[in-house]
Amino acid sequence: MKKQSWPLHDVRHWLEPGPVVLLSSHWQGQNNIMTLGWHTILEFSPSLVGCMISAGNASFSRIRQSGECVINLPEASMIDTISRIGNCTGDDVDKFAEFGLTTEKSDKVSAPSIKECFGQFECRLYDDAMVDNYNFFIFEVVAARVNPQPEWPQTLHYVGGGVFRTDGDVLERKALFTKVS
Amino acid sequence: MKKQSWPLHDVRHWLEPGPVVLLSSHWQGQNNIMTLGWHTILEFSPSLVGCMISAGNASFSRIRQSGECVINLPEASMIDTISRIGNCTGDDVDKFAEFGLTTEKSDKVSAPSIKECFGQFECRLYDDAMVDNYNFFIFEVVAARVNPQPEWPQTLHYVGGGVFRTDGDVLERKALFTKVS
Repeated sequence: MKKQSWPLHDVRHWLEPGPVVLLSSHWQGQNNIMTLGWHTILEFSPSLVGCMISAGNASFSRIRQSGECVINLPEASMIDTISRIGNCTGDDVDKFAEFGLTTEKSDKVSAPSIKECFGQFECRLYDDAMVDNYNFFIFEVVAARVNPQPEWPQTLHYVGGGVFRTDGDVLERKALFTKVS
Repeated sequence: MKKQSWPLHDVRHWLEPGPVVLLSSHWQGQNNIMTLGWHTILEFSPSLVGCMISAGNASFSRIRQSGECVINLPEASMIDTISRIGNCTGDDVDKFAEFGLTTEKSDKVSAPSIKECFGQFECRLYDDAMVDNYNFFIFEVVAARVNPQPEWPQTLHYVGGGVFRTDGDVLERKALFTKVS
């Protein structure tokens, strides 16, 4: 994969459809990964993403204390790894080693990116005002890169109960948009 | 459609995959509808959903003042209506009349549901602490119902620029989940 820079104001192209993502983090010499499905775009510029990271995850305190993470976008073909990452804890397991994933140096954060994922969105914690009450982290995406091919990779969308849906057809209705955003 | 009640703690089944939804609202005798793509599940019980409703929408103040709305889930076949609703304003147009949609009385909120949508999640404003800074509304889903067939309806996922993706295949990996949630 030869990933290319992606405009920060258009991170929504990848995350708004609601894909399952892998959050990678780094704290006190240890890397970790978690699977996440509860996130939403919040703003174009600055490029803000909100993530609900349950406090039960080993990643919760690591991300809060380091103030950084990377949102990695995996293709649907990684479904087994995605499922397994979500069903063990970084307190017991080095998930990069356990699942044969490769750390890739990030541009702007100390958290590593996951080389096998086709998209990476490096994040800094922007506002933690909702963390105590809702475990809801507001991140600013400070660097983004995506593998340019295929144009429409298959991602996963979680529905609970160990079941995912993939992406389907692409439908275009530009003519109905008065201001395209 | 014969919609059936859906468990409040499992609203995530429908909203976690990231579908485009239609928010219906009611304030001072007027109904309105807006198209929304920026939302995330926040909690199972109480059933919480966070929605970023841009302050430029006519719905913003109506939903904030009434403290209520309905998240309606449309099938992908409504793509033209979904696009058009997102590209006009309730200040100028009665969107139910303009787009031939039918109001359906809701169970617990005064905002009407949209009969043509296959799922309805009635919401009360639960926390507006993030509205001033981020236009981010935290709603509690207080009633939910879904048409039971088809089991896997096609929804839309917006990517910007007047382009949507639909849903694809259903993949099951229950065996890899230690605790199914």
